[in-house]
Amino acid sequence: MAAISFPLEEIYQLIKSVMLSNGCDEPNAVALADIMTRAERDGSHSHGLFRVPGYVKALRSGKVNGKAKPKVEKITPAIIKVNGHGCFAPIAQSVGLPALVEATKEIGIGALTLTGIHHFAALWPETEYLADNGLVGIACTAYMPSVAPAGSKTALFGTNPISFAWPRPGGTPIVYDMATASMALGDVQIALRDGRKVPEGTGLNAKGEPSTDPAEIIKGVLLPFGGYKGSAISLMVELLAAGLTGEQFSYEAKENDNGDGGPPRGGEIILSMSPDIIAGSEWQQHVEKFANKMSAMEGVRLPGARRHKNRLDIGPRKIDSALLKTIRELGTSNT
Amino acid sequence: MAAISFPLEEIYQLIKSVMLSNGCDEPNAVALADIMTRAERDGSHSHGLFRVPGYVKALRSGKVNGKAKPKVEKITPAIIKVNGHGCFAPIAQSVGLPALVEATKEIGIGALTLTGIHHFAALWPETEYLADNGLVGIACTAYMPSVAPAGSKTALFGTNPISFAWPRPGGTPIVYDMATASMALGDVQIALRDGRKVPEGTGLNAKGEPSTDPAEIIKGVLLPFGGYKGSAISLMVELLAAGLTGEQFSYEAKENDNGDGGPPRGGEIILSMSPDIIAGSEWQQHVEKFANKMSAMEGVRLPGARRHKNRLDIGPRKIDSALLKTIRELGTSNT
Repeated sequence: MAAISFPLEEIYQLIKSVMLSNGCDEPNAVALADIMTRAERDGSHSHGLFRVPGYVKALRSGKVNGKAKPKVEKITPAIIKVNGHGCFAPIAQSVGLPALVEATKEIGIGALTLTGIHHFAALWPETEYLADNGLVGIACTAYMPSVAPAGSKTALFGTNPISFAWPRPGGTPIVYDMATASMALGDVQIALRDGRKVPEGTGLNAKGEPSTDPAEIIKGVLLPFGGYKGSAISLMVELLAAGLTGEQFSYEAKENDNGDGGPPRGGEIILSMSPDIIAGSEWQQHVEKFANKMSAMEGVRLPGARRHKNRLDIGPRKIDSALLKTIRELGTSNT
Repeated sequence: MAAISFPLEEIYQLIKSVMLSNGCDEPNAVALADIMTRAERDGSHSHGLFRVPGYVKALRSGKVNGKAKPKVEKITPAIIKVNGHGCFAPIAQSVGLPALVEATKEIGIGALTLTGIHHFAALWPETEYLADNGLVGIACTAYMPSVAPAGSKTALFGTNPISFAWPRPGGTPIVYDMATASMALGDVQIALRDGRKVPEGTGLNAKGEPSTDPAEIIKGVLLPFGGYKGSAISLMVELLAAGLTGEQFSYEAKENDNGDGGPPRGGEIILSMSPDIIAGSEWQQHVEKFANKMSAMEGVRLPGARRHKNRLDIGPRKIDSALLKTIRELGTSNT
């Protein structure tokens, strides 16, 4: 690809202006520019500028309200609910997460549910926010069905990501964010483009037979990672993100989506726990010893380490020039 | 194997009497007899009578205190701690779980940490207890290191099970309990005995090379299920069970264990959530529709369904006669 060198501050301003010119108010545009710029900064390109066209589609179709003002409600001392009223997830998180941190520091554990949102970003920003506040975080969200439960041949689960973060005060937290699908659909498409096979267990063809041919899987269905066990984790994510928030399951999200190419309405649950309160004051030393032991093992890298390393580079990022052209046009062509 | 037909009530009485004659007081013996009988009832034979010799070893060596009285402490309105003072896990759960249910029904979410315990049972009894009380449950425990983090060749994680339960009032809850190891070591040993290969990804040989030969893996190390993603789940289990409880990580459990063949000292964390409070009163209808849709799919069985089906049979169970003989001797030969 032809790439252009582009400073992070300009990435931020470009996203913000595109969002403002497509119906977002200032707080919504800022929340989106922030979350996508952080993805580019960390090298998570698939959640950076690459997402702008999808966000714009959902704004232009009217599915998402770029001026929505999410409402925070404290149900109990440990349960926070945010109704996004049709917003993209980042602004709902920005109002809900501080309330979750406050509750968790008092009660030791808390849950934040986000409903009426459209989640199109990575999940690590929310769990990392908790870790940066000294808390353990778990986040789950569902999506549209593309993954067949183990044993079946039909999509029911979304790619259903789960993110987990563990705080390391003074260091970089342990953070991961992974789809419970064997592979993201985008990666299957890239394998097709590059003429590569995908590993066994990635998906089934249109007849429901195992395949390693990306073209066949695209006509068929993805599988969960790790067979029956991964399928069980994906089921947990689906139940927590939809059943426990009261928002749509993946199959409902598809039934009710307008098909504009942007993210469907869905729910997210974010759990947080205070090791200070639950484990007591010795926890940090105890966990550091474990983390250091693990990271010293040959072949092992603690989850999140690469993103945090990328973050140290404050210089410009290489951006695909065709993508940049598309995004600039989205900022001027709104009619 | 030669099998003997044995009523559940006699299984219970046998276990109880063996525990009483090996140093347990009445409450501890009852808690153990109860948990192992329930495993036999549900067809989870590996957590039933099969475990008795290991429990007895730990009692006879003095590692475990069969007369321990676990202490419950409420740290915050949602955090319950139980110090087992060296007991086996079941009695600590039996005093901690009711307090966790009470807290969760008030606050909407709660956590129970168990420390100073020796966990040698399945994890589904504790999460199913929560589901039977209308709550969502997640339980995690660590063990001795036998699993190499993805990318490495050295054991660090335990088999690190995670259990999840979702309530279905009036029906059987969705419940699973699975090791985050690719396969339990016992199953690798059974494959060896039966002359079967194990699937790719099960483990590494002593040189750290992938192997499908059970004999080679037994000399080497197990791998997490599902590659890097399963390894990330296993890491989460290890951090929650040890880091968040303040109890020993798997590697610490091994360093400090007396090698008697019984379970090492470890921690357990049990999280619970109230869908009534978090999702609101409509949750049950919403989730039933999803669960019915999923269980109607060809090739799919909801986790826990088979155990609950086994439970309907209140008749005698087939017990290996050699095992039964061993256990009866343990009840009389304590010197």
